[in-house]
Amino acid sequence: AQCSDGFKPEEDDGFVLEDVPHLTKFLPDLPSYPNPLKESQAYAIVKRTFVSSEDVVAQNIVVQKGSKRGVHFRRAGPRERVYFRSDEVKACIVTCGGLCPGINTVIREIVCGLNNMYGVNNILGIQGGYRGFYSKNTMNLTPKVVNDIHKRGGTFLQTSRGGHDTAKIVDNIQDRGINQVYIIGGGGTQKGAEKIYEEVERRGLQVAVSGIPKTIDNDIAVIDKSFGFDTAVEEAQRAINAAHVEVESVENGVGIVKLMGRYSGFIAMIATLANRDVDCCLIPESPFFLEGKGGLFEFIEERLKENRHMVIVIAEGAGQDYVAQSMRASETKDASGNRLLLDVGLWLTQQIKDHFTNVRKMMINMKYIDPTYMIRAIPSNASDNVYCTLLAQSAVHGAMAGYSGFTVGPVNSRHAYIPISQVTEVTNTVKLTDRMWARLLASTNQPSFLTGEGALQNVIDMETQEKIDNMKISSI
Amino acid sequence: AQCSDGFKPEEDDGFVLEDVPHLTKFLPDLPSYPNPLKESQAYAIVKRTFVSSEDVVAQNIVVQKGSKRGVHFRRAGPRERVYFRSDEVKACIVTCGGLCPGINTVIREIVCGLNNMYGVNNILGIQGGYRGFYSKNTMNLTPKVVNDIHKRGGTFLQTSRGGHDTAKIVDNIQDRGINQVYIIGGGGTQKGAEKIYEEVERRGLQVAVSGIPKTIDNDIAVIDKSFGFDTAVEEAQRAINAAHVEVESVENGVGIVKLMGRYSGFIAMIATLANRDVDCCLIPESPFFLEGKGGLFEFIEERLKENRHMVIVIAEGAGQDYVAQSMRASETKDASGNRLLLDVGLWLTQQIKDHFTNVRKMMINMKYIDPTYMIRAIPSNASDNVYCTLLAQSAVHGAMAGYSGFTVGPVNSRHAYIPISQVTEVTNTVKLTDRMWARLLASTNQPSFLTGEGALQNVIDMETQEKIDNMKISSI
Amino acid sequence: AQCSDGFKPEEDDGFVLEDVPHLTKFLPDLPSYPNPLKESQAYAIVKRTFVSSEDVVAQNIVVQKGSKRGVHFRRAGPRERVYFRSDEVKACIVTCGGLCPGINTVIREIVCGLNNMYGVNNILGIQGGYRGFYSKNTMNLTPKVVNDIHKRGGTFLQTSRGGHDTAKIVDNIQDRGINQVYIIGGGGTQKGAEKIYEEVERRGLQVAVSGIPKTIDNDIAVIDKSFGFDTAVEEAQRAINAAHVEVESVENGVGIVKLMGRYSGFIAMIATLANRDVDCCLIPESPFFLEGKGGLFEFIEERLKENRHMVIVIAEGAGQDYVAQSMRASETKDASGNRLLLDVGLWLTQQIKDHFTNVRKMMINMKYIDPTYMIRAIPSNASDNVYCTLLAQSAVHGAMAGYSGFTVGPVNSRHAYIPISQVTEVTNTVKLTDRMWARLLASTNQPSFLTGEGALQNVIDMETQEKIDNMKISSI
Amino acid sequence: AQCSDGFKPEEDDGFVLEDVPHLTKFLPDLPSYPNPLKESQAYAIVKRTFVSSEDVVAQNIVVQKGSKRGVHFRRAGPRERVYFRSDEVKACIVTCGGLCPGINTVIREIVCGLNNMYGVNNILGIQGGYRGFYSKNTMNLTPKVVNDIHKRGGTFLQTSRGGHDTAKIVDNIQDRGINQVYIIGGGGTQKGAEKIYEEVERRGLQVAVSGIPKTIDNDIAVIDKSFGFDTAVEEAQRAINAAHVEVESVENGVGIVKLMGRYSGFIAMIATLANRDVDCCLIPESPFFLEGKGGLFEFIEERLKENRHMVIVIAEGAGQDYVAQSMRASETKDASGNRLLLDVGLWLTQQIKDHFTNVRKMMINMKYIDPTYMIRAIPSNASDNVYCTLLAQSAVHGAMAGYSGFTVGPVNSRHAYIPISQVTEVTNTVKLTDRMWARLLASTNQPSFLTGEGALQNVIDMETQEKIDNMKISSI
Repeated sequence: AQCSDGFKPEEDDGFVLEDVPHLTKFLPDLPSYPNPLKESQAYAIVKRTFVSSEDVVAQNIVVQKGSKRGVHFRRAGPRERVYFRSDEVKACIVTCGGLCPGINTVIREIVCGLNNMYGVNNILGIQGGYRGFYSKNTMNLTPKVVNDIHKRGGTFLQTSRGGHDTAKIVDNIQDRGINQVYIIGGGGTQKGAEKIYEEVERRGLQVAVSGIPKTIDNDIAVIDKSFGFDTAVEEAQRAINAAHVEVESVENGVGIVKLMGRYSGFIAMIATLANRDVDCCLIPESPFFLEGKGGLFEFIEERLKENRHMVIVIAEGAGQDYVAQSMRASETKDASGNRLLLDVGLWLTQQIKDHFTNVRKMMINMKYIDPTYMIRAIPSNASDNVYCTLLAQSAVHGAMAGYSGFTVGPVNSRHAYIPISQVTEVTNTVKLTDRMWARLLASTNQPSFLTGEGALQNVIDMETQEKIDNMKISSI
Repeated sequence: AQCSDGFKPEEDDGFVLEDVPHLTKFLPDLPSYPNPLKESQAYAIVKRTFVSSEDVVAQNIVVQKGSKRGVHFRRAGPRERVYFRSDEVKACIVTCGGLCPGINTVIREIVCGLNNMYGVNNILGIQGGYRGFYSKNTMNLTPKVVNDIHKRGGTFLQTSRGGHDTAKIVDNIQDRGINQVYIIGGGGTQKGAEKIYEEVERRGLQVAVSGIPKTIDNDIAVIDKSFGFDTAVEEAQRAINAAHVEVESVENGVGIVKLMGRYSGFIAMIATLANRDVDCCLIPESPFFLEGKGGLFEFIEERLKENRHMVIVIAEGAGQDYVAQSMRASETKDASGNRLLLDVGLWLTQQIKDHFTNVRKMMINMKYIDPTYMIRAIPSNASDNVYCTLLAQSAVHGAMAGYSGFTVGPVNSRHAYIPISQVTEVTNTVKLTDRMWARLLASTNQPSFLTGEGALQNVIDMETQEKIDNMKISSI
Repeated sequence: AQCSDGFKPEEDDGFVLEDVPHLTKFLPDLPSYPNPLKESQAYAIVKRTFVSSEDVVAQNIVVQKGSKRGVHFRRAGPRERVYFRSDEVKACIVTCGGLCPGINTVIREIVCGLNNMYGVNNILGIQGGYRGFYSKNTMNLTPKVVNDIHKRGGTFLQTSRGGHDTAKIVDNIQDRGINQVYIIGGGGTQKGAEKIYEEVERRGLQVAVSGIPKTIDNDIAVIDKSFGFDTAVEEAQRAINAAHVEVESVENGVGIVKLMGRYSGFIAMIATLANRDVDCCLIPESPFFLEGKGGLFEFIEERLKENRHMVIVIAEGAGQDYVAQSMRASETKDASGNRLLLDVGLWLTQQIKDHFTNVRKMMINMKYIDPTYMIRAIPSNASDNVYCTLLAQSAVHGAMAGYSGFTVGPVNSRHAYIPISQVTEVTNTVKLTDRMWARLLASTNQPSFLTGEGALQNVIDMETQEKIDNMKISSI
Repeated sequence: AQCSDGFKPEEDDGFVLEDVPHLTKFLPDLPSYPNPLKESQAYAIVKRTFVSSEDVVAQNIVVQKGSKRGVHFRRAGPRERVYFRSDEVKACIVTCGGLCPGINTVIREIVCGLNNMYGVNNILGIQGGYRGFYSKNTMNLTPKVVNDIHKRGGTFLQTSRGGHDTAKIVDNIQDRGINQVYIIGGGGTQKGAEKIYEEVERRGLQVAVSGIPKTIDNDIAVIDKSFGFDTAVEEAQRAINAAHVEVESVENGVGIVKLMGRYSGFIAMIATLANRDVDCCLIPESPFFLEGKGGLFEFIEERLKENRHMVIVIAEGAGQDYVAQSMRASETKDASGNRLLLDVGLWLTQQIKDHFTNVRKMMINMKYIDPTYMIRAIPSNASDNVYCTLLAQSAVHGAMAGYSGFTVGPVNSRHAYIPISQVTEVTNTVKLTDRMWARLLASTNQPSFLTGEGALQNVIDMETQEKIDNMKISSI
């Protein structure tokens, strides 16, 4: 049954397409052209080079016989028709927010993709994040200029936080005659991309806005995993192994490793699961407490008696309420709007040191490691390199095909076009009620810090509530 | 297509479940018990610890509105009821075939999974592959013994090729009172596992046979990717970078890097895509020729004129017919039944050297690198470690839940139980008509070696034929 | 200048031997035996297995025609005669102070050396530093137990600071019948070794005390370089490269990397020279100031204008007086007697941030990295492994040959026995008037921070004064 | 013994200076100028910036009271007077022979040294080895061009073997007005440098010829260690560890790792000593035999019985006579005049496989690894980077000070100027009668392969004979 764009659900099998805007929505007479890929020698033998407009990717794939089809997203990839002639394309790329392994690969592959596949060679690099649009020089990006940048970490185009002034940016886009905007950044940046799209639509400009989600924390909803995440988890092992060696070599050694993760503890959780030498993993989603029965202090004392050493991995956003409470921290935000986190690692190190030295009168050796920059700043590893290549090429195919106001990313490992709102409204967090967190608890044998009857219940309620908010569309 | 009885297909939406055998199929009165995981502190707050017997994973997730549901596999994970009491379980683990990063992690997590989650502590290590059943001592495996083995490459239980004597093995299983058999190995090994299952069923033994697919070549069908593949692609970068530096430093330098890949060129393809300094990638699936128009020699000469150096990545199984033809090689097989491959790397190096030195009278500098063992023998990286953990735990949950004759693996990144036949009948190979191979060709700008009109067509025919064989079930 | 008796200086060519004590000095009738190495198959073909008692290593080797011979130390290595029968040897090994790559290799090679070369298999591991003598269980160390420990960082025997009670330790040595004591530790630990030697001599005990200098800071006098130093400088590159990538990617990025170096800046200096991306290197020996003309703030501003980013490497002991002055820090010491250093890295980051944000009203992006534990805790690299092997074997040969109260180490790359006092009285520091520091300044083009006429002069005076103290012997 | 004119041997204390030629030798009126370093800000506070013409480095530093002073070499470093004005210098750099980690660091530091210290900015890169002088374009080398090359392996100037035509090269030097020639290469290349020097002297040209010894095999006499050697030994560990894991995982696994070392086995020996998992190390200096009592086959069988696996490290030049004998190999040479070695690794693998399969009827698993290019092609590690910096700066200081026909290198870790002949006449080989080889034998417990009484004796005679040839000068 082949449903065209309007999607008239004959019988309600719960099929829902979360569609992405197309330029023809507000530029109905926009001409289209045959996709130059037809002539490309490399794609000559590809049986189905072009993705049909009907192809969609299913979001729920753990189903039951007859269960609702649920949400689908448009399959990414090249279309028969493109809505830009190669010579009229004037693209720009901007990178915003913190560093993450793989940004340079994405930049490189957008430039090479536009150039090799679509014969586009008018590509500008916006320098230093959003403010670069209106306060900086642009750079000409050619395959030659970006040829080796994937071998270095960081961003070739520099980055900054904040500086998003929608009107000024869209003015600049108009003034420079830019008609394709590739925006690499996290949740805050993608919200900016949505505003740019809305303003472009309001002004009726033929500008394709394509968002590429960048978050080392892996806290972007819908997509399986963010690029650079695997590289970061791998590099985090160095810090955890160092902490383990340090505390194994001293009496009552307690090693604390702070890893990235403002609102979601994915890096801390997966790095702990991959390492096997971690005794306790503290993440933003799982509240913990120090004092008294079932608290962290009690667990530390037990574990030191047992093994004489202990390693704790803590995400930067963990225990923030706890920290604020004990230090009346002011609610300062960084330029990207993220709550400026108190260094929970230094704070926890101090708390444990005081407790055991002054309260328990026990000798204790604290070793604190913060490897954040040494993880963010390395080049992406091989599998992330390939992931970034597919991501960049999907973004390019999408823009050339006239889609706009979309982000790209793998859904159940198939690249798809996702409405920006879907990835910005909800932060992807670790579900304590999922088996992955159970695996973590089983691997560390740490306490769940959920004492008192209500505790367990309100975690479940909290998450179910959160789930309901997210599922305002799906028709279960 | 075997629709499990429980499913009454009201109207035919094409839903097919490729089910896996259950012990109750031939032991109908086998008693079941509540899953001990209920009491596990770690799983206490998991909302839905147990996978419902209805949960299945969809294989085709790039669909169209109303298209057939297609094939599904049982979702992996713990079930409400188990068919073994913890104290009656006597498990054994065996590793067969070539080395691959991650084997030790799988061994460790099977032992720790059985022990921590199911209270099982009677676990035997079969030494040195299948022949270990009947010709070697077994080892007692406890969490303490395997605690650090994931930090070392290779297999803690040693391995060998061949040695599969179904009767002798099942006799040994019976004599030792083993009732759970975990078999880590490639395609050949999984065929052996199927024979063991069939013999166990014939003898009506309460023995769960669980296969864990191990192939560094990634040539196992159905599952997304085999464990150790990412680690191997990452390590291969060292060899490619070395070849690139060597040939950049000399006049007319041609570097050849031979990578694993007997029948499928995934490692060669993905390593090339991840590296960006490779000029040509030769894989078993894509025939190539040396002489004349559009041949490799012509391409090498062009590229040397252009860049004065060139890097070729070649899979060990590439050009075998070509090699055999030119050397009348005998069809010898190694103990695992794999065609003993002529070292295509040494062969190609010699051919190129002779051609340019004697025929073209050009000075040429050949640099040949075979990093095979340096890639196979390293420990798995962080993301493969987590993948192996999930794989091992799925195998344990499956066996405890009474399933048998199944392999485990991620289907669209959701772990599932897959009938062994599904993964052994067809070898997973690179589809030349897919966009990934097109991306490869685009990234190297190498010739497609498909000259003459027919060439392109017969590749497509060949693959479509192959696809039809594979899709004997799906009802599209 | 203490000339050993055996040397009749016919005419005074300035030859001085800084000799090490021998057990026969206070145990004249101590029997000696032929060195078992004679029978060793491995040493069979060594022409001159045994070092002659006349062989010495020259300290000053940059000489002039006819210049005085200067100081010499006894050449390390096996002697014809040994003063312990293999079966009577009861050796112990203790590791004190902070971690350093290579400690486990030294432990391993002392055990294997004693065992393979001298047939000694009664070797105790003292756990947790000096206090282990009187408050901990000992471990039996055999080649099998230590076989793989060189592959892990840290110390297999655990360590601690302080806890040196000479009487209690020598009592314990006497009670356990220990007659060879191998002490791995820094300057403070070697002073403890000297006290143990003096007490042993006072009690007339047949106990050989052998010190092995361990200091990642390379601040031990006389020896060329301390073990683990090369490994540390190599690992430090990761942190410097990460800082460079981070600051290159942002506007006005200032990266600060704090490296080890309490009193001497060798790691900071050599890591900077090896990296080439460092703009300024601050070490304890070279005072610096922040404000005003020629100060660090002025230099930072210039460099930011020029490159928009900057990397500063700072040794933990740098600018301590400056820090104390600005924060009236109390003079607390850690258990090893080292002045508890205020974290100069955090302090400097804060100072620069305040200055540019509040005083200069300039936007500035600070990135602070403290990789200390990630450098100390890794296993030693290949060249350090070989260095540790020679060091351990020299210590064993020395003790077996009846020497005591000595440390071992390479002098002009030839291993020698050095009186403990020689390495404890003076800390090895970077000479600002040497060409190595000039190379550093040339490579970073940083200011010398020596403004005002007197400044340069008093540095030279200070160092000449220091040199005079050190050179109480040498007769140039 | 050639005593330079300035030295009047009052009484014969055996002092000998192996002096290096100076341009004034055949250009007596060559004007000299004050060294620009005087004005350099970096060198301002260096107490003794300039090396006195009297300063020499002692070669024998293991001496005895009153023993002869022996050979000395001129201390490297800047002199008060230079014999080239900065603006008249026209320097060129050439790299010849096989790759070695660190070449790019040497190139970089010569360019930066000439530029920063001496204000020279007319520096040419000769491309592709000696033949580049007369058959290739030159490149302008500036600090900017070479800024990052030390981060990549290989040689930025390309290299080749042979192509040395003294007359053509000196013509080219004359035609281009080059007056400083920096030659980076091995033994063969340094011989070429000597011929260029002699021809320059014959023509009375004001051209300083400075040789920088490059040999990954460490087979250059007089200097302590060649640059890149430490990096190579470190990288070799990957191959040895891989071989060890592979053979530990199979029945009767024999791993063979072939390492560089045409005439001397330093890399094989030191890599083995550093690793501890090697059972046998075969080097060119130590003849071995396969069959019969005390042979390699017997040793392999014993070791397999004991451990079921074994790792052999073999230098490429080991057993060549043996190989030639058994295969009547023809004496072909590569373009650098090195005997084209039969791949002894492949040969030995085959021999062992045949022996155990056909003669001993034992199942055996051979694993052969040749990591040569993966070791040669990596960038130098941190300590080699610093070593290369000192080497390059010494070469620049020497040329500017008017010395010529000299090589640079550390003698007892102090950089010195060494007559080219001293490093080309004798190849630095492993002395079997030294304690380092004894340490190797002790660490592997391999047989000495010296059966029959004469064997040991003739090794000693052979080496003593060799020593006598080398010591035609020294007056002991």
